[in-house]
Amino acid sequence: MQRIEHRACFGGWQHVYRHASRVLQCEMNFAVYLPPQAEHRSCPVLYWLSGLTCTEQNFITKVGAQRYAAEHGVIVVAPDTSPRGPGVADADGYDIGQGAGFYVNATQAPWASHYRMFDYVSQELPDLVEAQFPATKARAISGHSMGGHGALVLALKNPGRYRSVSAFSPIVAPTQVPWGEKAFTAYLGEDRDAWAAWDATALVATAQERLPLLIDQGEADEFLSSQLQPEKLRDACAASGHPLDLRLRAGYDHSYYFIASFIGEHIAHHAKALND
Amino acid sequence: MQRIEHRACFGGWQHVYRHASRVLQCEMNFAVYLPPQAEHRSCPVLYWLSGLTCTEQNFITKVGAQRYAAEHGVIVVAPDTSPRGPGVADADGYDIGQGAGFYVNATQAPWASHYRMFDYVSQELPDLVEAQFPATKARAISGHSMGGHGALVLALKNPGRYRSVSAFSPIVAPTQVPWGEKAFTAYLGEDRDAWAAWDATALVATAQERLPLLIDQGEADEFLSSQLQPEKLRDACAASGHPLDLRLRAGYDHSYYFIASFIGEHIAHHAKALND
Repeated sequence: MQRIEHRACFGGWQHVYRHASRVLQCEMNFAVYLPPQAEHRSCPVLYWLSGLTCTEQNFITKVGAQRYAAEHGVIVVAPDTSPRGPGVADADGYDIGQGAGFYVNATQAPWASHYRMFDYVSQELPDLVEAQFPATKARAISGHSMGGHGALVLALKNPGRYRSVSAFSPIVAPTQVPWGEKAFTAYLGEDRDAWAAWDATALVATAQERLPLLIDQGEADEFLSSQLQPEKLRDACAASGHPLDLRLRAGYDHSYYFIASFIGEHIAHHAKALND
Repeated sequence: MQRIEHRACFGGWQHVYRHASRVLQCEMNFAVYLPPQAEHRSCPVLYWLSGLTCTEQNFITKVGAQRYAAEHGVIVVAPDTSPRGPGVADADGYDIGQGAGFYVNATQAPWASHYRMFDYVSQELPDLVEAQFPATKARAISGHSMGGHGALVLALKNPGRYRSVSAFSPIVAPTQVPWGEKAFTAYLGEDRDAWAAWDATALVATAQERLPLLIDQGEADEFLSSQLQPEKLRDACAASGHPLDLRLRAGYDHSYYFIASFIGEHIAHHAKALND
């Protein structure tokens, strides 16, 4: 593990590390914000999953989350959004291949050998973080757009692993919208029956753990009706009795300005669950 | 004036506009954050000047200032850092030409016809802002690095025009460091006597107005000893009795992580002066 960035920020340190991922079979960057409290004690960890086209940089440079992480004593870990590198499969288009891992374990060639972001984010990365940093095993997860989908799916498929989950503008029903259909066809194959295991709206029907879902969604989001459709998750949660706090925000779009505006509320939500 | 971005942010609106600048003889972008208070009343304005290589985008996407602007009811205007475009003089190097206007009025060919950022920021842009937005005539100014130099020089050369001034990691003595020597030679000519009118350390000796200077400087700044040398301004202020609050911050570097960490304190400082 090699430290490639190290910057003082809100009394703590914003780091970026590079390591050889066993699960993804490539070199990966991930960002770790250590709040000032981490100098004296172990702190709980919030995992942040970014959206299409992003790397580990977008969240740490554009959101201002460090302020709230420092306030609440929470470590924030932000991985890249897919395996990377010359030996890793890729394809034309911002919504498939590198930068678009969709937080699944791919089963289809040429993707299956590297595209295992689900295992990476839910297992390998926390194992590394908990071994190398002053981190407790109290974990929370959040993300934006494709990463909001990732956060919901990781929490729903790993009962007991996260204390809390939230999402901004998530792709709640990837099996029913173009972004998800394209990615799942490539990574998981033509058989749509295999897709439901990676779809939050499908997963809430049978979730073993009733972890409340906190979601913020901008009403001026340019992808609202085409790709996001939060009403699908709302209806599924209503049908199965799964707790959901879906907050529609008038005027807000899909950008990082939206995340920046409400990340403080999300981190306060996670900190409450993490510090309980 | 054409609106090219419009995004909800912290209850207000982050806009970017494009207009034909009479002073700079080119099209210019500038960012305007309107806090929620601006829907009901006129608000004072903080002008932010960015550093080398930046455009109007860096400050609005990386600093998180909108949160504090919304809290205090302050409009924040961030112009580009130089004239731009195919008809505008340029040169090789990140520290000269487009992206490196240095907030002076150039007197030398080929720069003099467009490079008049001092007049643009201190006159044309406020005239436009005060005519087109719900802005009062209460103004403050701040900036980073080259823009910190710009903020100090604009305030010192325009007594009565700004209620308050601050800077992050400013080039306090451009006539004595490589960045300034290179830019001033190009824009102002070989005669160093003409340079002193654009150097904060020289200007404090004869400043008509004793506007206190608030400066934050990271002690781990990679440009501290080569380009910034805040002790030069500290000594000049001590000699002339000019009020200066120079805060050295252990561990912080020259990046936007540093600005993000302390912009809240700067905006509170400006809001106090602006709302008095």
